[in-house]
Amino acid sequence: MHESSELNMTMLCDFYELTMGHGYFEKGYRDQITYFDLFFRRCPDGGGFAIAAGLEQVIDYIQNLHFSEEDIAYLRSRKLFSEEFLEYLANFRFTGDIWAIPEGTPVFPKEPIITVRAPAIEAQLIETFLLLCVNHQSLIATKANRVVRAAQGRTVLEFGSRRAQGADAAILGARAAYIGGCHGTACTISDQLYGVRAGGTMAHAWVQMFDTEYEAFKTYCEMYPENPTLLVDTYNTLKSGIPNAIRAFNEVLKPKGITKCGIRLDSGDMAYLTRKARKMLDDAGWTECKISVSNSLDEYIIQDLLRQGAQIDMFGVGERLITARSEPVFGGVYKLVGVEQPDGTVKPKIKISENVGKITNPHFKKLYRFFGNDTGKAIADYLCVYDETVDDSQDMEIFDPDATWKTKTVYNFTAKELQVPIFQGGKLVYQCPSLNEVRRYCMEQVDTLWDEVKRFDNPHNYYVDLSQKLYDIKIRLLKNNGKT
Amino acid sequence: MHESSELNMTMLCDFYELTMGHGYFEKGYRDQITYFDLFFRRCPDGGGFAIAAGLEQVIDYIQNLHFSEEDIAYLRSRKLFSEEFLEYLANFRFTGDIWAIPEGTPVFPKEPIITVRAPAIEAQLIETFLLLCVNHQSLIATKANRVVRAAQGRTVLEFGSRRAQGADAAILGARAAYIGGCHGTACTISDQLYGVRAGGTMAHAWVQMFDTEYEAFKTYCEMYPENPTLLVDTYNTLKSGIPNAIRAFNEVLKPKGITKCGIRLDSGDMAYLTRKARKMLDDAGWTECKISVSNSLDEYIIQDLLRQGAQIDMFGVGERLITARSEPVFGGVYKLVGVEQPDGTVKPKIKISENVGKITNPHFKKLYRFFGNDTGKAIADYLCVYDETVDDSQDMEIFDPDATWKTKTVYNFTAKELQVPIFQGGKLVYQCPSLNEVRRYCMEQVDTLWDEVKRFDNPHNYYVDLSQKLYDIKIRLLKNNGKT
Repeated sequence: MHESSELNMTMLCDFYELTMGHGYFEKGYRDQITYFDLFFRRCPDGGGFAIAAGLEQVIDYIQNLHFSEEDIAYLRSRKLFSEEFLEYLANFRFTGDIWAIPEGTPVFPKEPIITVRAPAIEAQLIETFLLLCVNHQSLIATKANRVVRAAQGRTVLEFGSRRAQGADAAILGARAAYIGGCHGTACTISDQLYGVRAGGTMAHAWVQMFDTEYEAFKTYCEMYPENPTLLVDTYNTLKSGIPNAIRAFNEVLKPKGITKCGIRLDSGDMAYLTRKARKMLDDAGWTECKISVSNSLDEYIIQDLLRQGAQIDMFGVGERLITARSEPVFGGVYKLVGVEQPDGTVKPKIKISENVGKITNPHFKKLYRFFGNDTGKAIADYLCVYDETVDDSQDMEIFDPDATWKTKTVYNFTAKELQVPIFQGGKLVYQCPSLNEVRRYCMEQVDTLWDEVKRFDNPHNYYVDLSQKLYDIKIRLLKNNGKT
Repeated sequence: MHESSELNMTMLCDFYELTMGHGYFEKGYRDQITYFDLFFRRCPDGGGFAIAAGLEQVIDYIQNLHFSEEDIAYLRSRKLFSEEFLEYLANFRFTGDIWAIPEGTPVFPKEPIITVRAPAIEAQLIETFLLLCVNHQSLIATKANRVVRAAQGRTVLEFGSRRAQGADAAILGARAAYIGGCHGTACTISDQLYGVRAGGTMAHAWVQMFDTEYEAFKTYCEMYPENPTLLVDTYNTLKSGIPNAIRAFNEVLKPKGITKCGIRLDSGDMAYLTRKARKMLDDAGWTECKISVSNSLDEYIIQDLLRQGAQIDMFGVGERLITARSEPVFGGVYKLVGVEQPDGTVKPKIKISENVGKITNPHFKKLYRFFGNDTGKAIADYLCVYDETVDDSQDMEIFDPDATWKTKTVYNFTAKELQVPIFQGGKLVYQCPSLNEVRRYCMEQVDTLWDEVKRFDNPHNYYVDLSQKLYDIKIRLLKNNGKT
């Protein structure tokens, strides 16, 4: 069984993390405390926000972080590393601090989803896995949330395992899709491991196996009289599939007094066919029969189908969700933002780029979200230096860091810190909420966003402002070409 | 350590495979021998062919296929399955036959990459994992092959772990990219597990850690004097990065008589900067210094850069390769093509669809590739019924199954069967070649394709023809709405 908490992913690192770590070790930076931020620069699909996900697997990874004897033997065979460094690795554990935004939280570009404070070698080594984990699950949770919002309260099931990019993409993709709001999955192991309810009924092969479609349906209803869903498009949806389904329901379910059942369509024009299907089922008295559809769905197709009056109760969403097909990369990055001085103060670091959008927010920071006390809605996010505090009992003027003349006064608001401590001195200090709690929290938090931010295309740009102090430090560093 | 051969992925199945299996078990189809084909319908990115990959992991999966006690307990908790069926699952092993096209082979739409002959329950249960595995790795191998061909003999390294869709996507993605022609990876564990050579040098954080860029470079050259690669774009590529790199090379490498070294650029205009960089390095006497670039590369950008005279020796390709960003889904499907009769003959099955492109090729089949004896080039592929044989000592007329009036006579050719036996009666009868052998075989086989088939856009449509007998069976089934 693929139990993520048993896996040791220490060697899933970019090789340069080891060569750099070796360099830090040998050249006097072994105990240098560093600060790294994990953040992203753009919401996928041109959306207005993303959903943070993957933290639970990051925690598993950190807790299991160690090099086995085989790992050390492999590294020795590369003839690059000193024996002292290999011995250091053999005893390697994570000893630093980690803060993170809880899973399910809507997040915005340039916000530190995770902040790591640790000796340089440790902080550097975990780069790849942290990114991979957060990038993947945030990507899928964000996409799922779009799809679920398009479905306007109808059931959305994740159906994409067979098109996922590897086993983890299927298993953890189903988990992330659930966080984003999906109601279940087809993937059995995701239910077993994470409690994402798995369901499903039949493939075309079931129908083909029998001599007639009717026989296939009747047999299935006999097997599973409680809410069977019949796949009606193997031969001809309207001429044979639905009539045979109705006949099987009448034959097997009606005598038992069962009214709950379903049909599924996997091809053809869904708007036309589902309206016809609804009428045929209603006319036959099967008004409680649910209609499910699948076949290359995404948020736009779902929106269009509903606009055209399609009669659909449930969407099975496959490849376009599990791979986030329209934009399959969540571009999270992991950047050095500070190094600790011998006196315990933090020297801020910046990554300069010719591309202005790639310039980082330096320093060890705090991230607040301001909620309006009247509306409960999120007004703006606010990044400041770690030693600053927001007093939300006072009105406050904030400004746009890209257009500093644009200011806004916030009042009657509550400031909430978004990051919470996860590890302190290498020790886990966070209790992961259950997956259902994460999913519920995600829905609640998405509800705190204005509709303008939730538009699929050209959403309102939510404010992520900098404190004056942080802004001044950033500008100073930029002017000094990175030097403090 | 994430050793795929130790993993049991049995529960990574779509839940309907279990409900259907239970149905077959209870309704008299337990011993029904079935034939399934795994094939795809369209090459990704509008390409002319795909590269088959993932078979080794399919084999691992089949060999480890079993339900643990916890699996059975979970299934029992779902209150859907009979105790007899659960007991059957507790003793479940794969007992069937599998044929497959070896990894690294160029493949075309509608060709059976894998054919399974097994009792219905077994054949159905393995659907999801087989698809997931072949879809994922074929996707990446195919994309990698495009990228590598665009690089025209230059080195291409896979750099995408951090943007991969989960751990397997990173680890096995690097494996698949290597099959497709990449020369190595940044992913350490892929080297350890599969021997995909992992390399890499430094991140921006290394440069930022030191007080000056020069100090960072000098320290690195001291650590790794054998062929160090310095990342030159942290502050300003032309004004500081390259001058500092040259200074470090002069200071550390020159006295040792070392001439091999490199620089890497990760931002800015690669065509302009690499030409400038080449000149600066050559002028300073570092003519052997290699120039590597990374930053959202794919086959089209690489092609363009080379066309513009960029001076690049090595490409690090990240997110657009590891997620196959331009088309992140390989649409392999798994369809019932026949059921075995009590007398041992095969009754062909077809999946009819209103979408003509989705109609399957029925029956248990053989797949040949015809190579011209003069040229060594692949002329056409040929699908026939399992009991047919091609006599390549004779001229042969073949025809296009979509436009039957288009015929072609092949002569002086060698017919090679593409599928080989993998499992017989549940027993592995295939020795997986080494990954290096697979990679070499892939390159050789891609060389058998005409350039017209290898164009990135609008390639020539390679012929995959049907035998007359197979064609007649297909037409008969279509006319009879699936009935023989």
